Amino acid sequence: MENWEDYKKKAWERILRDKEIGYLDPDIFEVLEVFFKRQKAYTQSSCSGRVSIVDSYLPWERKDSTVVYKNHITFSMEDLKDTISKGYVRRLWLIVQGPILHVYTKDMEEAWELLKIARGAGFKHSGILTSNNKGVLIELRTGVKMVHYLSPSLDQKELEELVSISLEVLRKGKDKLRKLKESVESSISNESMELRENSKRETELHYGINQPP
Amino acid sequence: MENWEDYKKKAWERILRDKEIGYLDPDIFEVLEVFFKRQKAYTQSSCSGRVSIVDSYLPWERKDSTVVYKNHITFSMEDLKDTISKGYVRRLWLIVQGPILHVYTKDMEEAWELLKIARGAGFKHSGILTSNNKGVLIELRTGVKMVHYLSPSLDQKELEELVSISLEVLRKGKDKLRKLKESVESSISNESMELRENSKRETELHYGINQPP
Repeated sequence: MENWEDYKKKAWERILRDKEIGYLDPDIFEVLEVFFKRQKAYTQSSCSGRVSIVDSYLPWERKDSTVVYKNHITFSMEDLKDTISKGYVRRLWLIVQGPILHVYTKDMEEAWELLKIARGAGFKHSGILTSNNKGVLIELRTGVKMVHYLSPSLDQKELEELVSISLEVLRKGKDKLRKLKESVESSISNESMELRENSKRETELHYGINQPP
Repeated sequence: MENWEDYKKKAWERILRDKEIGYLDPDIFEVLEVFFKRQKAYTQSSCSGRVSIVDSYLPWERKDSTVVYKNHITFSMEDLKDTISKGYVRRLWLIVQGPILHVYTKDMEEAWELLKIARGAGFKHSGILTSNNKGVLIELRTGVKMVHYLSPSLDQKELEELVSISLEVLRKGKDKLRKLKESVESSISNESMELRENSKRETELHYGINQPP
């Protein structure tokens, strides 16, 4: 039976490994880092926000569904036209999704505290998902979302509008992610000296040279 | 200081009042009813799922945003064309949203139990929002959602596609709502006789003639 600190340690090691092999969203590492700096939190899975195009009858389906385009940083007319030109099996959906983070906390107190911080940073659709031996799992989520049906008969002007609006939505998600990072960061500097000292000792103990700075 | 049962009683009275004046979503009363039949739950606010058209720059905004069309039951070409023909100030967004329920439970145990039932019924995006003197607040939410930018240059064929897909999405939400009602219903008949007897006595005590059957 592992304890909570072991799960946190493993989660951090996995993030470093994912970063190494390029599996981590390119713009999320620094955000995850600030969560690990809180003594009683670690992140599990996360998405920094992205544009995707999905081939499915209905956009929320997982079965009978293929992601045909995905980009966390940008989106262009070329991307959209290339993807559409390849045809489709069911329907094409253009989905722009804000950031989503899954965070395990050591106890309910920390869960409520992080929810408060996250909501203050614009993650209004956040809540507690479950509680298990890995901790209390919270999901931090914004309302930033666009789920647009791509008709086969879109003209040039409509395509241009879609790219421009998608980028606007993507950017709004990134703004909120930055705000979240800043809010969690300042919550740490507000912790008492004693807590920070404990946290530092534990971090050194658990993470060795791979500790979050 | 009111106790939990008083809050439940008031919530039920409000639902009856809202139903009377036509403020309640037309197809949600029977769903709310089954939640009240559980001894340790009551619903606060709820939406049975709907099609709406919103005039805003970005679809999740509350400020600088006007709902120009809303229907919980159906949607037609006439509805869409009429709404578009009136023009817009910012942008028009066609939003089809699955059902969302807010439920207060008496304790965490009941919150986890209802979350389990709801997820089983397809309300995959459910979680605990907060905990206060009214109880533990959970949000029950599906992944059913479409957030479609309405370009000013849509042609007849695209409009027809949009109406048809919107109705499909709306219907998927209603299916899940029905499934939720059935699951909560059968969870009640699974409760022990003792619990039911207690619940019945309390219900009679608190609700008098307006009790949920």
